[in-house]
Amino acid sequence: MLERFHVPDTQAVRVDSDGLRQTVISLFEKVGVPSDDAAVAADVLVFADLRGVDSHGVSNMLRSYIRGYNEGTVNPVPKWKIIRERPATATIDCDGGLGVVVGPKAMEIAIEKAKNVGVGMVTMRNGGHMGMISYYAMQALDHDMIGLSMTAAGPGVVPTFGSEPRLGTNPIAVAAPSSKGHPFVLDIATSIVAANKLGLARRIGSLIPGGYVTDMEGTPIMEENPLPEQYRVLPLGSTREQGSHKGYGLACVVEILCGILSGGGYAFMPERLANPYGHYHHMVAAYSIDAFTDVDDFKGLMDDWMQGLRDTPTAPGHEKVIVPGGPEDEEYQKRIHGGIPLHPEVIDWFKDITKELEVPYLLSIDGL
Amino acid sequence: MLERFHVPDTQAVRVDSDGLRQTVISLFEKVGVPSDDAAVAADVLVFADLRGVDSHGVSNMLRSYIRGYNEGTVNPVPKWKIIRERPATATIDCDGGLGVVVGPKAMEIAIEKAKNVGVGMVTMRNGGHMGMISYYAMQALDHDMIGLSMTAAGPGVVPTFGSEPRLGTNPIAVAAPSSKGHPFVLDIATSIVAANKLGLARRIGSLIPGGYVTDMEGTPIMEENPLPEQYRVLPLGSTREQGSHKGYGLACVVEILCGILSGGGYAFMPERLANPYGHYHHMVAAYSIDAFTDVDDFKGLMDDWMQGLRDTPTAPGHEKVIVPGGPEDEEYQKRIHGGIPLHPEVIDWFKDITKELEVPYLLSIDGL
Repeated sequence: MLERFHVPDTQAVRVDSDGLRQTVISLFEKVGVPSDDAAVAADVLVFADLRGVDSHGVSNMLRSYIRGYNEGTVNPVPKWKIIRERPATATIDCDGGLGVVVGPKAMEIAIEKAKNVGVGMVTMRNGGHMGMISYYAMQALDHDMIGLSMTAAGPGVVPTFGSEPRLGTNPIAVAAPSSKGHPFVLDIATSIVAANKLGLARRIGSLIPGGYVTDMEGTPIMEENPLPEQYRVLPLGSTREQGSHKGYGLACVVEILCGILSGGGYAFMPERLANPYGHYHHMVAAYSIDAFTDVDDFKGLMDDWMQGLRDTPTAPGHEKVIVPGGPEDEEYQKRIHGGIPLHPEVIDWFKDITKELEVPYLLSIDGL
Repeated sequence: MLERFHVPDTQAVRVDSDGLRQTVISLFEKVGVPSDDAAVAADVLVFADLRGVDSHGVSNMLRSYIRGYNEGTVNPVPKWKIIRERPATATIDCDGGLGVVVGPKAMEIAIEKAKNVGVGMVTMRNGGHMGMISYYAMQALDHDMIGLSMTAAGPGVVPTFGSEPRLGTNPIAVAAPSSKGHPFVLDIATSIVAANKLGLARRIGSLIPGGYVTDMEGTPIMEENPLPEQYRVLPLGSTREQGSHKGYGLACVVEILCGILSGGGYAFMPERLANPYGHYHHMVAAYSIDAFTDVDDFKGLMDDWMQGLRDTPTAPGHEKVIVPGGPEDEEYQKRIHGGIPLHPEVIDWFKDITKELEVPYLLSIDGL
């Protein structure tokens, strides 16, 4: 985690996760989301905050979701349904429902299929935002499965050599269980940086490293700078020589598996750009470890391998080698006991919105 | 394709692909590979050369394979077998057989499973080198499927902040069909550059860009330089700030899905480092498009999307936006008619080895 994309601790107010979750549930319910769905969606959001993924927690996402419900660009009571199915596969039409509502259910379907035939893979079209996508991949862990999730978002990222955005930040998440310590959890945008992190950097006044964005002509800005007013995001790799064709190519794979394979379409198609509803397409998958190898053998290998990675001698100037999911797990342990740090401006928003929508304000620093 | 990783045309001798394939088949047969397997392996190699992927064609790989057979580190007559199986999955023990021999068969199994249940996913342990892995992903195309292939190789790449190699270059390939023009084919190392490309750059005397390798202490070399005598390869992203944790994380995913899920193990485990036999672990998968959506709809969307990517306005100094698989397809069309350019030193090797092993030298520039 780079400091420039985190709320500095000195500015933060720490709130209890249970009170935060309750407040978020009430807000979702107030805008028309059924209670069960509200609980699921709140859990996805607060889990992101607990894991230190501030960019995808309540600060950035909740107000955008509430706005979506109020403006009618998200369906609070989606009649999502499976429109095609095989023993290992399903395609779901989300009917404009948020990914944080339909996603957990889609992953449950994938897990059930993986129990039956070894693999379950579910594409989702016409949905809303997924929040922190590793949530869905991590649903597989308790079932001794490997989880995969990805989401195809609206255009914001330029292809290599291009000057106009054609792809979303199209993140990929993979979770795999171990028996000791934290599970392996990777959750990465295929762009050089997640869009929400740029928003966060602007809010807290951080500079953006070179190679993150282009000017409006498509030329990469290679020096550290404040985020320009207008910009395009670069793919992972920044420039062709440093491998931007790989980040761009991976974003394409996400577009194919989420948008095109679900029948939902692609980021820059005119119909999509004209329609504010059901913008996002997703894919979740579960792989039963037992279908491939002995589960205990797998976890034993994972333990040894992850420990070996952590034990890698470090390069000068660095303290330790990190295994994906480690910092988020550490942050989770801290925040589940010590509270979630929120920017005072976010606290104010909660005070205002709970008053406006007449729901109880339950954010609390008591008992921490 | 960057010029520094290609044999300059002025130095090259162009040879006919059929004669080259026949010669390669004879060489494989002479070192003990059964005729059917020899034909498959030769096809994987020559297909790489035809697609312009010189780093994974006969120049770099064939002599390494022949050496492996001669030194007994590769099994010419592997008794590979399925050791675990579900309707959507299989795990294959390759018995030390080359990936270019067992891989095409594993992908056929995945395709068959995808026909039955929508998805087929096959992990492979204790195998040899896979050559150009997009070969396997591309096998899916004629079946109206999406193909995926990846391979976990020996340690050569440092994790972010590490000074010793813990992961292979662990490439990922994805192929998806369209109805017009070339299919989508992505084939990328999760390291900043494929190991074979560094070897090729050394042979043709090219400089290496900054951010490709570290010194032996693990510090990234950020200036353009000739390839040092000793070095470690960096993950895609080069440094933490430019996203090396993403390249490192993707390499980990390949290790999990190929090495650990197959029960084969991981790159730096002591048993593996002590044993020169069956070093590589792989995964291939096929996704039936019809299991998710209408095949014609899918291909129509692919056509429009890929054309839209090609039509993206370019950034200053760049001529066009490329769709993954486009340059390789163009090169294929040129080389299938005009021959495959080989470095004179490679031609000499063919002359020597065919004489030594007493097989016919059929490399020909006739009729081109």
